[in-house]
Amino acid sequence: MTPWPTDRLTALLGIEHPIVQGPFGGGASSVALAAAVSGAGGLGSFGAHALGPQEIKTLVDALRAATDRPFAVNLWVPQPTEVTNVDLVPHIERLRPLYARTGSTPPARVTVQNFDDQLQAALDAAPPVLSFVMGVPPAAALESARAKGIRTIGTASTVEEAVALADAGLDAVVASGSDAGGHRGAFLRPVEESLVGTFSLIPQVADAVDVPVVAAGGIADARGIAAAFALGAHGVQIGTGFLNTVESNASAPHRRALNSDGARRTVLTKVFSGRMARGIANRVTRDLVDAERDVPAYPVQNALMMPIRRAAADRDDPDHLNLWSGQAAPLTHETTAVEYLTRLVREAQARLGG
Amino acid sequence: MTPWPTDRLTALLGIEHPIVQGPFGGGASSVALAAAVSGAGGLGSFGAHALGPQEIKTLVDALRAATDRPFAVNLWVPQPTEVTNVDLVPHIERLRPLYARTGSTPPARVTVQNFDDQLQAALDAAPPVLSFVMGVPPAAALESARAKGIRTIGTASTVEEAVALADAGLDAVVASGSDAGGHRGAFLRPVEESLVGTFSLIPQVADAVDVPVVAAGGIADARGIAAAFALGAHGVQIGTGFLNTVESNASAPHRRALNSDGARRTVLTKVFSGRMARGIANRVTRDLVDAERDVPAYPVQNALMMPIRRAAADRDDPDHLNLWSGQAAPLTHETTAVEYLTRLVREAQARLGG
Repeated sequence: MTPWPTDRLTALLGIEHPIVQGPFGGGASSVALAAAVSGAGGLGSFGAHALGPQEIKTLVDALRAATDRPFAVNLWVPQPTEVTNVDLVPHIERLRPLYARTGSTPPARVTVQNFDDQLQAALDAAPPVLSFVMGVPPAAALESARAKGIRTIGTASTVEEAVALADAGLDAVVASGSDAGGHRGAFLRPVEESLVGTFSLIPQVADAVDVPVVAAGGIADARGIAAAFALGAHGVQIGTGFLNTVESNASAPHRRALNSDGARRTVLTKVFSGRMARGIANRVTRDLVDAERDVPAYPVQNALMMPIRRAAADRDDPDHLNLWSGQAAPLTHETTAVEYLTRLVREAQARLGG
Repeated sequence: MTPWPTDRLTALLGIEHPIVQGPFGGGASSVALAAAVSGAGGLGSFGAHALGPQEIKTLVDALRAATDRPFAVNLWVPQPTEVTNVDLVPHIERLRPLYARTGSTPPARVTVQNFDDQLQAALDAAPPVLSFVMGVPPAAALESARAKGIRTIGTASTVEEAVALADAGLDAVVASGSDAGGHRGAFLRPVEESLVGTFSLIPQVADAVDVPVVAAGGIADARGIAAAFALGAHGVQIGTGFLNTVESNASAPHRRALNSDGARRTVLTKVFSGRMARGIANRVTRDLVDAERDVPAYPVQNALMMPIRRAAADRDDPDHLNLWSGQAAPLTHETTAVEYLTRLVREAQARLGG
């Protein structure tokens, strides 16, 4: 087998191929997907930011039972911009037509998981890899992870964030370009000034840090893998391509959208959760476009939109659903995770082997 | 010399290296820069959208006198969204503090060049290459260009636009990812739904059209050239890297900004011209951030801001200047165009020759 141009990431994580499955935080992760990716030699991931401590323990047990290879559990580091004490009335009023159209009702309360408890549960469960988005995890947790032999991966959307993560001692850094789908993880500056395209971000991060760099955002085929290596990455993280496999928990309307012409038109929007995220443009992103600057921050807007999103998924209604997608969706097609990963490896090695 | 992986673009344009200098529309182009790039084997360009017909004739004469190699003259195709009949009072009021701070005054009138006259002048002057942004040039003009042996290049920000340009008969297509600096050229859909990162855009355009594809946006060093070829491009267009050469007409404060840490933080903004463009975040983009959706369309906002921009350039004041920059600015440094191009070619050939 042709060697990859660098084995720094594979050696660090104990995996065969330098391909990480992007973690999906909003319910689209599945144990079956993570286990399939890890079993085929990549690094499967599971987004656990919505899970409570006991659920995290159960998750890690399930992943360990499903694969004997390394896998990652992903958490969101909380941000100081999160708000819980706002007057909800005007924000509920703005969404009134959406509740009506989807037959849903505003939530009675806003709840959010306690990060410290999640983190402690994850450290206790000791998955092979703990990955983070949205910030720098606490020093004590990184210390504890090192002591337990857990590898840690941070996620940066700017050079400044990559340096902060490397300085804090994360073992590897995902450089997540603005081509990526789902939530942006900007944490040092306003997200509007932290949107760097994947093509521009990778070489600048590679120049700035000494840890292995995992390129993310817009990568879905062998061309993208070869390009990421050319730009200086040591591995790639692929989200949307794995979201579009049969093993993911993507809903039927989400899946249809990923495989439609509409997937060519993604937008960055705060209206689904109060944090900026990339998804396929639909009725909600267009109807609420003028509210982008007015919606309350995460987790409030997320809680207000949750009944609408759940009802839309139940009603098979893509118009009121968060259709997270990276900009490479048109390069993907529905397949199994093993078939997809195997083909990526074969075609990338053919290109990179020269 | 190691051959490039494809000679489709070089053969089409009659150039030695598949490297196009991005055209700068706002006064930063120079005959010296275009001639230096063409003389060193690339394709020099000059952005002529602000010039009148007689100035275009004079420009082409000057370029022809300065180099015997192929060069490009670039025009903006007008868009139906352009407006000229709006109530200027509220818009001037919004800018009142900026006029005051820069010691400038609102303009007496809004003027704009007539595109048909510009195009006829360009066809009469018959430069080796005519390139376009913002739309599909008229069929009769393309017919006339073909008859005169003028090569034509269109610029796409989406797959749909690339297909429209190829179908219209343009000889090559620049696929301009959202990493690129200056004005976005989206013309088929709202610009907010037409912002595709370079990494994602190139392979999708390469799959969709049969003409040579020139990758643009975020490319500034040999890694970017190798990655662009890996993604399926036949050549690259480099804007900011050439803007940062001594031959460009970039103002002193603009140049300082390109070489500062601030260049890591670019934003897409409509406040300078009424059309979305990427530049380095500064006082104007921050002060007017809430006006993004309210400023009048090009050319009105452009005319209202012109006195402020001119005064800022005269006063060496980067706070009130449009600091156009792509997201690869931190990969560039001030040098001469020939040195820069020669180094790009040498290092890219070393990587691509394998």
